[in-house]
Amino acid sequence: MSEGEQMRASFPEMARKQADHPDDSLVVDFGPDQPLRLDSGLDFAPLRIAYTTAGRLNADRSNAILVCHALTGDQHVTNVHPVTGRAGWWDVMVGPGRPIDTERFFVICPNVIGSCMGSSGPASTNPTTGRPYGLDFPVVTIADMVRAQAMLLDGLGIATLFAVIGGSMGGMLVQQWAAAYPSRVFSALCIASASRHSAQNIAFHEVGRQAIMADPDWHGGQYIEAGTRPTKGLAVARMAAHITYLSEGALQRKFGRNLQDRAARTFTFDADFQIESYLRHQGLSFVDRFDANSYLYVTRAMDYFDLASDHGGSLATAFRGTATRFCIASFTSDWLFPTSDSRQIVHALNAAGARVSFVEIDTDKGHDAFLLDIPELFDIVRGFIGAASRARGIA
Amino acid sequence: MSEGEQMRASFPEMARKQADHPDDSLVVDFGPDQPLRLDSGLDFAPLRIAYTTAGRLNADRSNAILVCHALTGDQHVTNVHPVTGRAGWWDVMVGPGRPIDTERFFVICPNVIGSCMGSSGPASTNPTTGRPYGLDFPVVTIADMVRAQAMLLDGLGIATLFAVIGGSMGGMLVQQWAAAYPSRVFSALCIASASRHSAQNIAFHEVGRQAIMADPDWHGGQYIEAGTRPTKGLAVARMAAHITYLSEGALQRKFGRNLQDRAARTFTFDADFQIESYLRHQGLSFVDRFDANSYLYVTRAMDYFDLASDHGGSLATAFRGTATRFCIASFTSDWLFPTSDSRQIVHALNAAGARVSFVEIDTDKGHDAFLLDIPELFDIVRGFIGAASRARGIA
Repeated sequence: MSEGEQMRASFPEMARKQADHPDDSLVVDFGPDQPLRLDSGLDFAPLRIAYTTAGRLNADRSNAILVCHALTGDQHVTNVHPVTGRAGWWDVMVGPGRPIDTERFFVICPNVIGSCMGSSGPASTNPTTGRPYGLDFPVVTIADMVRAQAMLLDGLGIATLFAVIGGSMGGMLVQQWAAAYPSRVFSALCIASASRHSAQNIAFHEVGRQAIMADPDWHGGQYIEAGTRPTKGLAVARMAAHITYLSEGALQRKFGRNLQDRAARTFTFDADFQIESYLRHQGLSFVDRFDANSYLYVTRAMDYFDLASDHGGSLATAFRGTATRFCIASFTSDWLFPTSDSRQIVHALNAAGARVSFVEIDTDKGHDAFLLDIPELFDIVRGFIGAASRARGIA
Repeated sequence: MSEGEQMRASFPEMARKQADHPDDSLVVDFGPDQPLRLDSGLDFAPLRIAYTTAGRLNADRSNAILVCHALTGDQHVTNVHPVTGRAGWWDVMVGPGRPIDTERFFVICPNVIGSCMGSSGPASTNPTTGRPYGLDFPVVTIADMVRAQAMLLDGLGIATLFAVIGGSMGGMLVQQWAAAYPSRVFSALCIASASRHSAQNIAFHEVGRQAIMADPDWHGGQYIEAGTRPTKGLAVARMAAHITYLSEGALQRKFGRNLQDRAARTFTFDADFQIESYLRHQGLSFVDRFDANSYLYVTRAMDYFDLASDHGGSLATAFRGTATRFCIASFTSDWLFPTSDSRQIVHALNAAGARVSFVEIDTDKGHDAFLLDIPELFDIVRGFIGAASRARGIA
């Protein structure tokens, strides 16, 4: 934190235009003397990280929990979102008396770099040109995101995390944290995730990127200067991705072939079916809160993630000798990050001699279950944190 | 065939521009005195149907097999495709000595209405305006497609089909044929299909349609007049759909996380992974041979298909009293039209007292398996046709 103390966030550029609600984010800035070393070999500076906190850090700084958000998530884990005005994305999980209890723990949730809610990303101003980076922003990795978060924690004076917790991409960050900084992670909870992105998942991400880049309003990534936004392409990207977040069974149960408020088919290309209307809404509401270039960067980071490959092809090697306590959870109907992906992590942790528990939760809610009101998941998180806090000696 | 005899096809508008190979299609035209009654209530005329034949019709006209193509298929089932120059799409299945043996059977394959390879569709000229229909072409259904095919067969003097055969959307036409014209269908072979399109499948189609309609070169469907083509949107639609045609396992086995001909990640948005390059190629090559508006119309027809709903909610009712011999086949790794969809058809046929055999073929090739070299599928088709031809007394 060379360039001044931790401060209240000014709204990020994109959000400012539409924000109806106060932004509870804090930001820290790292100047050119503290560059972030990236996997691509570049040193990136200046670096800004936006984050939120909830709860209080205890006297011996042992009760910090880092929550890692997913692809299109952000730091607004438990507070009202400044753009949408909706409750925090993990409000059901994090808060007073919740499984991640902010009356006991100090929760920190940073916006990942490359994203668009205040941390450095493609919409940030490039100090060299005075204009938005666009595609001149460096391609970052999950390891880069974690390295930036470690800088934030250094700045906050938090040497050790009681827990690192996240689902989906957040679970990738959890694994990266445990592999890169084993001595800083007392416990790690990884939900609905994988140690490497599958070919099918890369394929779906590539469809989304092509949809964005096919939009003429994308302007080669320089749309902010052009005064446009590739909203149509971004909406299509979100629609395609959203299907993968749900299970076929849930879609069938929730929508089936139900028609909208009409007695019959219209014989047009209007949204006759409820599922069509629902998907269109998902696409349209997403573009209000997310930046298209950030979608490119964060999906790319997920596609690049392959923890075994970073450790000579052996996932067990990534965790060798760890003292971290792990919990791995998956959902039966998650076809984006199926249980087999979680089992692969568990097997590697077993091979590495790590302490690990694993649970597959029976639900038809698909990948998005990690964000939803799933009592079994709450019980598991509560139980894991309870046992770990006793082991850590946190009152 | 009021407006003249069956004739050699002139190339359809779009294909003409790029055709490097002779088009073996035939066409028939039906004039205003023979309109096609559509499910939407409209009477459509004039109507053109392009089709190909292979083999010879026998003396008592009892050896005709109707092959029904899938969403982006066409009439070029066994002959060289006039645009791509590639072998017919079911060349492995249909031909001399093949499972559908053109030395014994007379094979007819019409291009469905709404498509773009010569049959009436949105790229056809609207006689009222002298310009391409665009979105003024009526929305058609699977039942409309089948009714048009029945008109073609009437014109050819073929009262009864020895068999109706198709996969995917083609299997929908097979079921519709059997339900609408039971006395004209001696046997019916339905591969990798369903009696109604699922919510997830409608969702994927809707993503594709939105990708096309988001392309400014779509021009509200009047792109031919505008001198453009929404190739980027159509390519994205194809990419998204193509993922659903393959299995996760096949993608992982074929591509995994393999990089292109480079030692390492490029830290750009180029196609680093082979799966990205493959998908981009699928999208780009598709737009050379398919019309974007037709993609809207044919996907809509599939989405509207719900055979039970057309029969008071009971699929068994659709087949009640049928004398047709059925064979239903599915693939273990097909998640677009999973085996449960085929079982639903089988259960209805059982309830209707129909003669039906069912087989689930073990393969990791996903939905596209029906187009591929799957020996077990060939054996099943050969066996089913053999038994049916003995029952029908075809030498």
